[in-house]
Parts: sequence; C-alpha cells; structure tokens
Amino acid sequence: MALLKRLKNLRTDDNTGFGSNSSSTGGRFVNKQGRANVIKQGVGPLDRYSWYHTMLEMKRGKFLFLLFLIYITINLFFAGIYYLVGIDHLAGVNSGSPWKNFTEVFFFSAQTFTTVGYGRISPVGFTASAVSTFEAFLGLLSFAIATGLFYGRFSRPQAFLQFSKNALITPYQDGIALMFRLAPYKNNTLSEVEVQLTMAITTEENGKLTDKFFALEIELKKINALALSWTIVHPIIESSPFYGLSKEDIAATDIEIMVFVKGFDEVFSNNVVTRTSYVSSEIIWGAKFNMMYHPNEDMSKTVLDLGKLNDFKQVPLPESAIAGSA
Amino acid sequence: MALLKRLKNLRTDDNTGFGSNSSSTGGRFVNKQGRANVIKQGVGPLDRYSWYHTMLEMKRGKFLFLLFLIYITINLFFAGIYYLVGIDHLAGVNSGSPWKNFTEVFFFSAQTFTTVGYGRISPVGFTASAVSTFEAFLGLLSFAIATGLFYGRFSRPQAFLQFSKNALITPYQDGIALMFRLAPYKNNTLSEVEVQLTMAITTEENGKLTDKFFALEIELKKINALALSWTIVHPIIESSPFYGLSKEDIAATDIEIMVFVKGFDEVFSNNVVTRTSYVSSEIIWGAKFNMMYHPNEDMSKTVLDLGKLNDFKQVPLPESAIAGSA
Amino acid sequence: MALLKRLKNLRTDDNTGFGSNSSSTGGRFVNKQGRANVIKQGVGPLDRYSWYHTMLEMKRGKFLFLLFLIYITINLFFAGIYYLVGIDHLAGVNSGSPWKNFTEVFFFSAQTFTTVGYGRISPVGFTASAVSTFEAFLGLLSFAIATGLFYGRFSRPQAFLQFSKNALITPYQDGIALMFRLAPYKNNTLSEVEVQLTMAITTEENGKLTDKFFALEIELKKINALALSWTIVHPIIESSPFYGLSKEDIAATDIEIMVFVKGFDEVFSNNVVTRTSYVSSEIIWGAKFNMMYHPNEDMSKTVLDLGKLNDFKQVPLPESAIAGSA
Amino acid sequence: MALLKRLKNLRTDDNTGFGSNSSSTGGRFVNKQGRANVIKQGVGPLDRYSWYHTMLEMKRGKFLFLLFLIYITINLFFAGIYYLVGIDHLAGVNSGSPWKNFTEVFFFSAQTFTTVGYGRISPVGFTASAVSTFEAFLGLLSFAIATGLFYGRFSRPQAFLQFSKNALITPYQDGIALMFRLAPYKNNTLSEVEVQLTMAITTEENGKLTDKFFALEIELKKINALALSWTIVHPIIESSPFYGLSKEDIAATDIEIMVFVKGFDEVFSNNVVTRTSYVSSEIIWGAKFNMMYHPNEDMSKTVLDLGKLNDFKQVPLPESAIAGSA
Repeated sequence: MALLKRLKNLRTDDNTGFGSNSSSTGGRFVNKQGRANVIKQGVGPLDRYSWYHTMLEMKRGKFLFLLFLIYITINLFFAGIYYLVGIDHLAGVNSGSPWKNFTEVFFFSAQTFTTVGYGRISPVGFTASAVSTFEAFLGLLSFAIATGLFYGRFSRPQAFLQFSKNALITPYQDGIALMFRLAPYKNNTLSEVEVQLTMAITTEENGKLTDKFFALEIELKKINALALSWTIVHPIIESSPFYGLSKEDIAATDIEIMVFVKGFDEVFSNNVVTRTSYVSSEIIWGAKFNMMYHPNEDMSKTVLDLGKLNDFKQVPLPESAIAGSA
Repeated sequence: MALLKRLKNLRTDDNTGFGSNSSSTGGRFVNKQGRANVIKQGVGPLDRYSWYHTMLEMKRGKFLFLLFLIYITINLFFAGIYYLVGIDHLAGVNSGSPWKNFTEVFFFSAQTFTTVGYGRISPVGFTASAVSTFEAFLGLLSFAIATGLFYGRFSRPQAFLQFSKNALITPYQDGIALMFRLAPYKNNTLSEVEVQLTMAITTEENGKLTDKFFALEIELKKINALALSWTIVHPIIESSPFYGLSKEDIAATDIEIMVFVKGFDEVFSNNVVTRTSYVSSEIIWGAKFNMMYHPNEDMSKTVLDLGKLNDFKQVPLPESAIAGSA
Repeated sequence: MALLKRLKNLRTDDNTGFGSNSSSTGGRFVNKQGRANVIKQGVGPLDRYSWYHTMLEMKRGKFLFLLFLIYITINLFFAGIYYLVGIDHLAGVNSGSPWKNFTEVFFFSAQTFTTVGYGRISPVGFTASAVSTFEAFLGLLSFAIATGLFYGRFSRPQAFLQFSKNALITPYQDGIALMFRLAPYKNNTLSEVEVQLTMAITTEENGKLTDKFFALEIELKKINALALSWTIVHPIIESSPFYGLSKEDIAATDIEIMVFVKGFDEVFSNNVVTRTSYVSSEIIWGAKFNMMYHPNEDMSKTVLDLGKLNDFKQVPLPESAIAGSA
Repeated sequence: MALLKRLKNLRTDDNTGFGSNSSSTGGRFVNKQGRANVIKQGVGPLDRYSWYHTMLEMKRGKFLFLLFLIYITINLFFAGIYYLVGIDHLAGVNSGSPWKNFTEVFFFSAQTFTTVGYGRISPVGFTASAVSTFEAFLGLLSFAIATGLFYGRFSRPQAFLQFSKNALITPYQDGIALMFRLAPYKNNTLSEVEVQLTMAITTEENGKLTDKFFALEIELKKINALALSWTIVHPIIESSPFYGLSKEDIAATDIEIMVFVKGFDEVFSNNVVTRTSYVSSEIIWGAKFNMMYHPNEDMSKTVLDLGKLNDFKQVPLPESAIAGSA
C-alpha cells in the first residue's frame, strides 16, 4: 500500500501518551466528549475514583438528587437511633402508632441535622442529647462539604466551546485543506487560544496492527482572543499524512484526529482546556463551511449564530489536488 | 489612496480572533470596558449564559438585590404550600384573617428556610413536617450556593487598572509616538505586566470593506512591577501603520487600537488580564501627558495622583515628523 | 576509582537546591513520598508550621477526628462557663446532681454552638445571654473555617500518579537504559506531563564526602496527555553518569534518582506536581517491565491494569553494554 | 566621580516600573516587607482600596476583632429597631427597665442573626416578624461572606521565605561577590524558584538627581526545589555596577537592591512571589555566612537551623579585588 510507504517518511509524534502497539489498545483513543477511552483496573474503587472529580463532573440534576438522597439516608439512620433510644427521651413528641412515632423522630432528626431546631420536640436525658449533639455537628459539617462542592462545581474552569460535528476537506489556496471550526457559546472570553491536532492512523505492518501518530500542521496555531468562530485549517500539502488520500482511502482507513484546545478564560482567570476527536466517518469530502456571523441591523454589533456551527455546503475540489492524490 | 498602498506592505496580524471581512462584522470590535462587541444566537438562553459568569460580573447592588428577591420568592412559594396544607398543621400560629394567616405561614417559612426555627410556630403532622424538612434542606443548600457566589465574586482575580481616556500623538525622540497610560488604582501589586497593542483599520479595497489588523510595536513591552503609572509608547516610525497619517487622516479613518494587558497580581497570586480600546475620536493629535506622581512632603514616599491620569497639554509636533507624513 | 574520574568529565546539575557538601546533609535527599528529607530548627513551632498546609495534608480520618475533638473541647469550655454562671440563668434545665447539671449545660452549649437552639433550655439574664451570644458567633465562624478547610482539602490540586516501586536496568536499542514507569490511577486527566530526573551520587574526594548531582537525559521528556502508563527511559549512553557502572557498582554506591513530575490536571484546571526517588537498593539489574494495558473484550476500550505497575521479568542484558561498562 | 562614568557604560534596566527622575520619587522604592513605597491619591477611598485585598492582608487578631465588632454593631442596630417597634411585639421577653428591655432585644437580635433561635423570645405581628426575617437572611449572608474571607485568607498562596537581614560582600572565586540568603521556614515546598535582582542607584547628573536601575547578574538564577537555604551570589565582576565601589563608596551612595523571588508552592499548587530590598546600610563589607544546616545525630536527616539565617563572620577580602576597585 502506497499510504504505508508515504507514512514511513513522515516524522511521527511520539508524545501522545498512547502506545504504538495497536493490539494493546481498543476502540477510538479519545471519545467525542474528549475523555481518553480507557478503563482502569487493579486498584480498589475507593482509590480508582477521585470522589471530588466525580462530584464535579456529575450532571447537575444527578448531583442535586444525590445530595437529597444523602440527606434522607442520614436522617433515616439517626431516626433509627432515636427510635431505639426510645421516644420518651424526646420531650414534646406526639406519640401514637410506631409509624407515627418513627415519622416524629425522623422530623426531629431533620430539624437537628439542619439546625432548624424548632424545639417543639427536644431531647431530654443524656443519650438522646448526646446523639443530637453529634448529629447537629455532623449536619453542619455536611453542609460545609456541600458548600465546597457547590463552589467547586461552579467555579470549575471550563472551556465553553462547541465544535462543528464534522471536519471537512475543503478547497484551500491552490490545493485542499482539512477544516473544522469551534466557537465560544457562553458569555465568556478566551484569550491566547491554542490548538494542537494529532492524527492517529492504524496500519498493518508485517501482519501486525500498529498505531502511528502524526502532529498536523495548522495554518494559524494561536489567536489572541476568541470572540467569533474560529476555523482550524490543516493544509493538505506534501508534509501532511493526508496528502494523497482519496475520499475512499479516508473512509477505509482507521483514522482519528485528536483535537486539544487550550486558552485563558478571563472570568475564571485560569487556563482551560478541552478536547474532542474526529474519526474517519466524521470527515466530509468536498465541502465548505458557511459564514456563521453577520452584523446586526444597525451595524453596531456582530451577531454570531451558533446554530450554523456545522453548516456547510458541498463544493467540488480542485482537480489538481485530487490528481495529486492519485 | 496612499494609505492603502502603504498598508499593503506591512505585515498584518492574523491572529486577532476577528475575521478580515468587514461586511460580516458591525461596530467597534472591543468596547471601552474591554468586552468583544458580539451578540450570540442559535443557542438557548440557558446554554448561552454561564450563570456563574453572569453572577460574578453583576454589579454589587444588583447582586444583593437579586439574592434578596430569590429569598422572598422561595418563601412566598413555601408559604403558599403551607397555606394550602392548612394552618392547623402548624402549631402556635396566631390565626385570623386570610392575610394574617398568610403572613404567619410566610414568617414560619422564613424561619425554616434560614434555620432560625424559633419554634413558636412548629409543624405538626406528616405533610407540614415533610415540607419543612425539605425547605430547611433547600435553605442550607441555597446559602451554600450563596457562600460560593460571594467567595467567587470577591476572590475573582481582576486587574485593578485605570486607563487614560485618550491616546495622544506626542513628540518622541526625533519623531512622534502614540502614547496612552495606565495606573493601578487599588492596594494591589502587579508583577511582570505585559501589554499588547493591535490596530484595526477598515479600508475599502475594490469596493469592498476589509478589516486589517496590525500588531503595534511598543518601546517597553513588559515591566517587572507596576508600582507607579506606566506610559505605553508606540513610536510612529516607518514600520508603524500610523506612519504618514495626518491629524485629518486619523479622524477620517475607521481606526481602533485594541489594548490587552496581562500581569500577575501578588495578592490573588494569579494572572489577571484586562482590555480596552481607543477609536479614532479618542486619539488626540499633538498633546503630552503631565507628570502624575511626586514625592510626599518629607520625601519618604512617592505620591501617585490618579486624578491626573488623563491630564495632558497641547504641544506642537516636530515639523519633520509631520512632513514625513505628507 | 574509575567512576570518580568519569564523573569529573560530566557536567553537574547545580540547581537542585541541595548543597554539594555531603558532610552537611544526612540520609536520602527526598523520601519515597517525595518530600525533602529535612528538619527545620530555630523558629518557634507556630512559625515553623503553616497550620493550613498541615490541615490540608493530614489523613482524612485524623482530620475529622481533630474537628470532633475541637468541637467537644469548645463545648466543655463553654459548659464550664455556664456552670460557673449558674444553671439558674438557664431556663428549662432539668437540674439534679452536679453531673446531671453539667451534662445539661454541655448540651445547651452544643445547641448554641451549632445554632440548633431547640429552646427547651434558653439563657435568661445578661451574663448567660451574653456568653451564648458570643458562643453562637464563635460557632458560626468555626463552621466557616471548617467549610474553608474542607474545600481546601478536596480542591487541592494533586497529581494522582503511582510510580513503579523499582527502577530497572533494561535492554534498550543496542545498549541498556534505566526505566521506571508511572500511571494515573484515578478518573483524572493530565495534559502536557513533563518529567525531570536528577541523580545524586555521593563520592569520596580527597577523603571528604561530596554530593554530586547530574541531570539525567530522558528519551521522551514530555507527553501531550497521560492516558495510559508512561515508561520513563533514560538511555545509558556515554553521557550518562550510569555508563560503565556494573550491577555491583550500583549496589555499592550511594545513588539516589530524584524524580519530579509536572502536569496540568484538566479537572482542577491547575498545574500539579509530584516527586519520588529511587535509591540504589531500588534499582533492579537486568529486568524488563511487562505490558500493563490491553483491549477489553469487545475491543472498544483500552484496559489499564494498575495492579501490574511494578510487574517485570528478569532479562539478560546485551554483552556489549555490560562489556562497555568494564 | 568615577562611579558615574562607569555606570554610563552599563546597560540600565528600564523595565522596573519606577521612573528614572529622582526628583519625582521619595524615599526607598521597596520597603523591607516588599511593598512598593507609594501612596495613591485622586481616587475616593472606596475605589482606592480593594476591601478584599485589605481583609486578606490584615493581621489575624485584627481581622477577628473586626468581625466581632461588625457582629456587635449589626446586633445593636437591629436591637434598636426591635426596641423602636416595641417589645410587646416580641413574645416571651422578660421586660423591666429600659436597659433590661434593650438587652433582651439585643440578645433576641443575636439569636436571630446567628439563627440560633431558641424561641424563648419570638416575634409576633407583622413588623417584628418581617424585621427578623430580614435579619436572619442578613445573618446567613454575613456568615457566607465570613466563610469566603476565612478561606481567602488561609488559602492565599504565600511564599513562606525568610531573608537574611544583611547582604554581604564576600570573597568569591578570585574576587568578591555580593551575597544574601533565604530559606523556607514552614512545612511547604517550593519548586522552580527564581530570583531577580535589580539595583537602584541615585546619582547626580548636571545638578539633577537621577535614578538608575541595573539588573544584577546572579550565579545561579533558578533552582529546582528549595529544600535548604539558598545563598544568592552576585559576582562583582567588571559588568557589575558594584565593581570598583569601596566600602566607603557603598556607605556614601544611595543604593537599593530590590529582590524578587518567584516559585511554585506544591501544596497551594500555585505560583507565589515575594519581595524585599537591601539599602546601603544593610550591606556588610567583608563578611561571610556561616553554614546553617547539618546532619542530625543518626545521620538520617538534614537539620536546617533557621536561627542562623543571618549568622556571618567578618573575613578579609582579597587585596586584588579591593585593588581592582581603586
């Protein structure tokens, strides 16, 4: 295969953090959300997960529900203890059926844990008082932890960037280029934004699958401020591993373009990074992005239409570029 | 136009993050407060705004009022629920007219939400107790979020810098230079402060408006510590896009000087950035800044007078420099 | 000794932060956990410890127990005050034996400190009210501090990396190399990971022990993303201070390899660093690491088995490499 | 003066952030604590201070006292309101003399502000209930702010470094050098520590005082880890502005050595910076630092004795170096 011969002459990128032995890895390297496609084994679950990282990356609804669940569970636990201690140690309880009694101690527990402490029900005697003393302490610490988690979640520096679903092979100057684009979708401002592209290609060498990685050159690697959309352009010239690949070659080859974006968010005052990847089936042959911004009616501001991020139209590629690929 | 010809020979700065097609953008690029002059469309409002960024950048009074409003709204909501459940589920209520009853349940709600829990009014029975159990939980989480927001707001690294309102064309060495100045106005210290200047100029080429961007050279790009005022000097020599522009040219051309300042704040221990811009009408021809600092009476300290930040006086420019511009 | 002569020709690394006079230092430079092996003297204990650093690095169980201890201690203190003031200043106390009375005021103190304030017991008169006013204030501030500590602890950027217990001398290309490996063990992602190796060797020169430091060259100093395990390779070529050392030389010489790893954690959005060191007895002659990752069953993901981090097998080293060392 | 002539040939450092016109500045540039010796004017006090920076840098005792003062003040204010509303709106008050009544409402206010809410006293009627509703809200927000301040204070990245009180002129290689030293005094670890030295010298030129700044070359500008003490060495060779200055010259000249240290704290995971300065009277001619670390008794650890940080002994300087200065 000609491709193989060509790739041999290109300098590979060895510092991707992925090995080159394809029989040792499975599936794509980076998933669409930008996480490494890796499962860890050989450490206990407590060690394998950073619970803080997990809580930070959990969906909002799930996170709130989890907090509520913990709240209910702790109160059920303490309600059980108060119940065992005996409701006669709680002054003011409207006692009755066991269920009624249990709800009373449950609500007393909640009033203690949250430190509301209405006082209609209050502990008397050493045991109940000691338990409630501990519960109130635990309650405040729990809310201290929750405070930290909330702050950690919303102050977590994130790059609010959307990527076009597809990467395109587009006419560019006298030849062709691989392009995709990205845009900030929130009221944040990113400075000094940098992009790195790495192409992973799986080839068969002497009957053995091997992963090769290549850094892809970008026309404009860094921009000062990301205010509008940004189209990343990788010109497919002779030094590119894409050079000479036909539409069919791309579809048939196991290619993955890994994207890494780094910038400085001016509100977080912190560096933020994000990743994504495009595999063969997400690369469109012979297409061109449509403009996605325009001035507003009174010409005083620029409107960025994020709905058009993946808007493209089919265009013919220059014969010479395709010929060159033959 | 001679200007156009000259600009063709200068290297443009392509990594500003703004496109070069003027018919696609509207108004100035960066507003005086330093934000990109862009509106976003095509994403829902929930996705378009980072509520955290919004809360962080809100004016202090508005932020506090918003918190209070949320507090009142939540209590009205819960008061409604307690009212529907029935005030007979709340022991100790001084019942009376519907309005009186509603205020009683409203205050009970507030006492629960804030976990004051005086206990004069207290829930009896399952429903009211369950609602108040949930409300106290919600209350603590709300204050956890508020704690995070307060901390986020005041710990947000910001460059407390003021810029002179105008940029001046001033005699400098044998020729002229564009100058403006900036000064720290709070009890903060900035280290390793760097400035980048980009000039945007809109020109007509073949009947089509085009934006061109040029990086402007600065005499002293970086200083170790920003203790006093700092005058940024862009010498208008042959490599400058300003070279050869007359007072009238500047007024008639659509020019914008975008300023980007980056430094390390020693109290926040964090990088901070700030931006501003000067448009044609903010550039003063033939003026010079007055000194803005002087020793104090006993000569033991230096006094920086921020009231004089934009103090300048008109001065004649050297004939040669103006002649050169003809 | 030939070693000494060879080392003389190699450029030492003088910026390790450790002096070169071996009689002034004791033991290994860096312990296995990566902390400098230094004791400080001559400053008072209050100045010598940053209590915040101490609280941040304390084991979780110890930290929680310490908080609980402080809680109990403060309540005992305030219980003492209320007891001295007299329990007749606390309405609602079920008085009895001194012990009974003390437990009552202790629980009242806890109810005040946590702001539960059931109200069965409440202060009457100026003194008890004033003390409880202060205690409630102190309580809230204490929980404010606890909140900060919790957040500080779990938001503290850490590099969750495990290192192989041993460093190996392994066949590599035509010669040999020193290798060890590291792997991320939690659900975190590190970008732009960099390693620095410094070798410390204690030699006798003119009857005086001297420490010499050498920077060790690494085959791949930096990787873009640390997704799988990473084997650090230091080729033992002529410029290496290891060149020519036999198995026996290594065992007999006082060698320490100090490892410094720096990366950017994408969840913390912060740089993280970690250190470790390998001494002579932790270096294995003639061994090779086993592969520690493989595809999962359906070939869709890669499995990283952390239990195999230090898995190696003995292998013969190439004669030439060993001969070269003679 | 020969000094003046020599200085003319040295390259000045223009990016110190201080101007070169001595008649415009007063006193030393940087005080011993490392802050710029500048007073700001021309902005209102609210704008001139970042209250957060102020609260962060306040001494601990003063900070706690301020919080307590605010707590008392707010309660006095609300006590005044409840008093005006009338104590008959507060059920459970033990009324009596006006003073007695005022203390009762004051303690009720405190119980509301801290959300203890014992409930012995509780608001009845709209006005008192509304005021207490607002006060409880304000109370929680105040403690939210306090939480943020506490966290901000103790998580504030600081370089825990001590500097020797004096800088010494010491024999070094064949000549002399200016030396001072610094050491970390807490249980923190600094990586990649860098030092910058700038010398300010005030000279009279044509009857006008001028400040000149020179970057001083350092023998070892950066170290990997700051574990022990670090002696900063500026060799006084021909390119040094100190070259040729005698003991008397130094004493008679208005010299200031500004020190800037930057490092990465591994517990804060953040860059930290610190500054100090040495003026003429703090430079000792002909002295040498004593060793400040030694192995512990069992030779297993290194002991760093911070009490010896400024320990030095007088030593003669080489004739040649002094001759060279004639």
